[in-house]
Amino acid sequence: MSSQINFSSILLENAVNELAKLPGIGRRTALRLALYLLRQEEKDVELLGNAVINLRSKINYCRICHNISDTDICLICSNPQRDEKTVCVVETVRDVMAIENTQQFNGLYHVLGGIISPMDGIGPADLEIESLIKRVKDGGIQEIILALSATMEGDTTNFYIFRKIENFPVKITTISRGVAVGDGLEYTDEITLGRSILNRVEFDRLINN
Amino acid sequence: MSSQINFSSILLENAVNELAKLPGIGRRTALRLALYLLRQEEKDVELLGNAVINLRSKINYCRICHNISDTDICLICSNPQRDEKTVCVVETVRDVMAIENTQQFNGLYHVLGGIISPMDGIGPADLEIESLIKRVKDGGIQEIILALSATMEGDTTNFYIFRKIENFPVKITTISRGVAVGDGLEYTDEITLGRSILNRVEFDRLINN
Repeated sequence: MSSQINFSSILLENAVNELAKLPGIGRRTALRLALYLLRQEEKDVELLGNAVINLRSKINYCRICHNISDTDICLICSNPQRDEKTVCVVETVRDVMAIENTQQFNGLYHVLGGIISPMDGIGPADLEIESLIKRVKDGGIQEIILALSATMEGDTTNFYIFRKIENFPVKITTISRGVAVGDGLEYTDEITLGRSILNRVEFDRLINN
Repeated sequence: MSSQINFSSILLENAVNELAKLPGIGRRTALRLALYLLRQEEKDVELLGNAVINLRSKINYCRICHNISDTDICLICSNPQRDEKTVCVVETVRDVMAIENTQQFNGLYHVLGGIISPMDGIGPADLEIESLIKRVKDGGIQEIILALSATMEGDTTNFYIFRKIENFPVKITTISRGVAVGDGLEYTDEITLGRSILNRVEFDRLINN
């Protein structure tokens, strides 16, 4: 079958066109999904359609950390068990999930919504940086952990934020870069390996952690 | 990230759960799609959701050939340009699309909706075989082309249909099996190669086609 598909139904053609707009889903996969949906119960297909529509139309972002939330303030920010003195700055909602999954962090988050990238036309004003500075200014935060991508854009954003908050009485740290746990040295790229040597830690600390 | 995902939103979790029910889409891909949808315009996400819901709730099947159709009788069956004396019997809507894409067939179709498969509990009564026999009985059809899978189930279904319509004045043919165009003999499986020798055609006919 060529990539051109002969449809006998406008409804089918519409569904395939819309599904094929999703990233990583081509027209043949979209057709396979549409024909699969046709074989499902009508109520199950409605559940899918409505879940997708409601996700976009009803979603909220936490007023404090800008994480995805169904409520005005998210479950993490409103949890009294969490350490509100430590704030981890990340690019996206996905990064929050990744860090939550490690179960190694009990502080709060601040989701920037991206990263400074002049090439893509994204400047500081497009990100939640002002609101981060305001949080720091309001007091109560003792440490800001910068957990952005280890790229030039990430470094730029780290430096921008650092300059904006360096005069406040807050400790600024970044997550450590180095050889991944379980990786052999020969499979680690030179820059990472170089950084892991420069940022070496005392053997005792590793044992105690 | 492990396969377990920490959601901060029920809406997001719902959307991921529903998307992950689609065939070939795991939970990580579903999360990627959901986060992608969150970044799209609200009206575009509504288009997708409604296209999917309408596909299932509003779809019709052609009263004559059982192909997918937005109308009571599909565009192929209602097209006066098509040769209504030749009917090609296929398993699914997808097969109609595949044959239409070859642009080599100008007759009508009959979609069985599957294939006789005792292992899966699918018998003749579950398929559109009675309606096919009625079409033959009603007259006007000169040739029935059986274009089912080259499997044991396909052969069984072919034989069942053959026995049901052999007494009517209609020519019964099947699509030819053989070495795929462009394939070398060494890459063709033995059964296909064996059939292509048994069902050899005169060289002249090939030239004339």
